[in-house]
Amino acid sequence: ADALASKGSVAGVGVDQELISSVPSSNPCFVERNFTEAEIAYCRAQPSPPSSFAARWVGKEAVFKSLGVPSKGAAAAMKDIEILPNESGVPTVTLHGNAKAAAQGKGITNVLVSLSHSETVAIAFAQASS
Amino acid sequence: ADALASKGSVAGVGVDQELISSVPSSNPCFVERNFTEAEIAYCRAQPSPPSSFAARWVGKEAVFKSLGVPSKGAAAAMKDIEILPNESGVPTVTLHGNAKAAAQGKGITNVLVSLSHSETVAIAFAQASS
Amino acid sequence: ADALASKGSVAGVGVDQELISSVPSSNPCFVERNFTEAEIAYCRAQPSPPSSFAARWVGKEAVFKSLGVPSKGAAAAMKDIEILPNESGVPTVTLHGNAKAAAQGKGITNVLVSLSHSETVAIAFAQASS
Repeated sequence: ADALASKGSVAGVGVDQELISSVPSSNPCFVERNFTEAEIAYCRAQPSPPSSFAARWVGKEAVFKSLGVPSKGAAAAMKDIEILPNESGVPTVTLHGNAKAAAQGKGITNVLVSLSHSETVAIAFAQASS
Repeated sequence: ADALASKGSVAGVGVDQELISSVPSSNPCFVERNFTEAEIAYCRAQPSPPSSFAARWVGKEAVFKSLGVPSKGAAAAMKDIEILPNESGVPTVTLHGNAKAAAQGKGITNVLVSLSHSETVAIAFAQASS
Repeated sequence: ADALASKGSVAGVGVDQELISSVPSSNPCFVERNFTEAEIAYCRAQPSPPSSFAARWVGKEAVFKSLGVPSKGAAAAMKDIEILPNESGVPTVTLHGNAKAAAQGKGITNVLVSLSHSETVAIAFAQASS
């Protein structure tokens, strides 16, 4: 009964924001270190690639926070947190590598994220459920 | 047991933000197309109607995102997403028309929203539960 | 079964933001009225105390909103909403006094919060679960 009851309960939340201009999306090293190939292809095809990279970047940070794991460096590369639109266009999180292991270790089975950007600011919210 | 266990689980989240100055709340066509009569009456009675309209506007966008439905035009007019304070002053979502149908089609039974505005920016977060 | 099923369901959400410069963290009266001793010690030890105080301040506001209680004055002093990092560095909410009583009265058993600050803006999201 406890296992059933805890299904779907929220394990962590995360919020993050950045000035779009402060996310170095024109730096190829930054982009390749932190985004998957599919993310890069998606962002480059959007009307404003810098806004899309920035929104995704704060999305990754928000997802990371929602996992509630201690130290960023050791626990997860940002590239291990992949955010791509599903068939309805809803940003959808897939965890890889250390991020996936960290989530599994905490019993997290689902992470939701939402992204927004204005002209100048990108913001994201994430929620991890067990 | 599965039905019980999934009750209350989070189906989607949404975040949105806008500069208050970029929400055309002094345009009567925009207001009448997107806000219900009760919302208009409420916003006009607040200390800063432009801030209240802008907060509600991003609230509607955040709720829409939380529903996870594909295309805004077809799926829901913003007027179908009504946000009014309950007796405790907490912003409370009521869905009408296509938005209500879209939520029901996804098994969503409850949508929570929170609104905030600074001098210049309105921001909202929404969460849809099944 | 109903009690089990409702465990972990989300009771309320809250979002808040402020310009860091608009939070009077250099005013000792404001700080002592609104922050616990442990919060003050923590914020003063951070690289940018004004940013840390501002993030915590909007965190308290977001938590308050997530409780869904009517009136701030009567219902909870902000000092009753304490936000301190846990052993993993995750901001963790402890309710005291009237805030604790208000939460218990609504069956709220857990409140999650996430904080973020840019150079100029602090933002927070909170989620209350029953």
